[in-house]
Amino acid sequence: MGVIHRRSGGGWDHAPRWEGVEPQRYGDSAAILKHELIGEADGAGQYRVRYFQVPPGGRTARERHDHDHGVVIVSGRARVTLGDQTDEVGEGDAVYVAGQELHCFEALGDEPLGFICVVGPRAG
Amino acid sequence: MGVIHRRSGGGWDHAPRWEGVEPQRYGDSAAILKHELIGEADGAGQYRVRYFQVPPGGRTARERHDHDHGVVIVSGRARVTLGDQTDEVGEGDAVYVAGQELHCFEALGDEPLGFICVVGPRAG
Repeated sequence: MGVIHRRSGGGWDHAPRWEGVEPQRYGDSAAILKHELIGEADGAGQYRVRYFQVPPGGRTARERHDHDHGVVIVSGRARVTLGDQTDEVGEGDAVYVAGQELHCFEALGDEPLGFICVVGPRAG
Repeated sequence: MGVIHRRSGGGWDHAPRWEGVEPQRYGDSAAILKHELIGEADGAGQYRVRYFQVPPGGRTARERHDHDHGVVIVSGRARVTLGDQTDEVGEGDAVYVAGQELHCFEALGDEPLGFICVVGPRAG
């Protein structure tokens, strides 16, 4: 059966929340929030759709792991590390992070960085 | 190896295009465009991340099929059918469409409806 998680509060860049979705801390950071918008709790078995918000000056872990990521930036700008390359990306840009590729998303400028990040069912 | 598909042109609601992504026609409609932002061509094996743009007054097929959908609205408003229910959703709302559930997304108002739609690897 289908599920709707309505976003409450303002736009992507104003600390959004979703009905029926509990924000999770991301790693050791109290400032980065992860929201699993669609996942196993909804019945999705093949993928998870998450939303991350990174405050100005913050960044995600610089890491590599087996699972890949499908990312779409929805607000703000980022400096993205992919392997030994670094690029700037902004709203609307799509980034594929391959498995075992070093990666990091760093918020640039004064706006929070918001992005959707899709993973397979077993990834963290 | 990672891939960046930069969005060219304006915002979500201004007929966006992406570098390295060829827009596809959706069914019989010349007005609805589908962009596969991340998929097999990038090396993603577990999911596909697509962007759909539906013009004002347009709607996706009213259909049901085995595969499920993870949808996030990024611009405009929609009347969404899920089984025998109909709801209005807008920017930022997340919608899970279960397998074999009747579904349809209809653009409401004067703005195009834009949404990200995630599917598993074999779904169309």
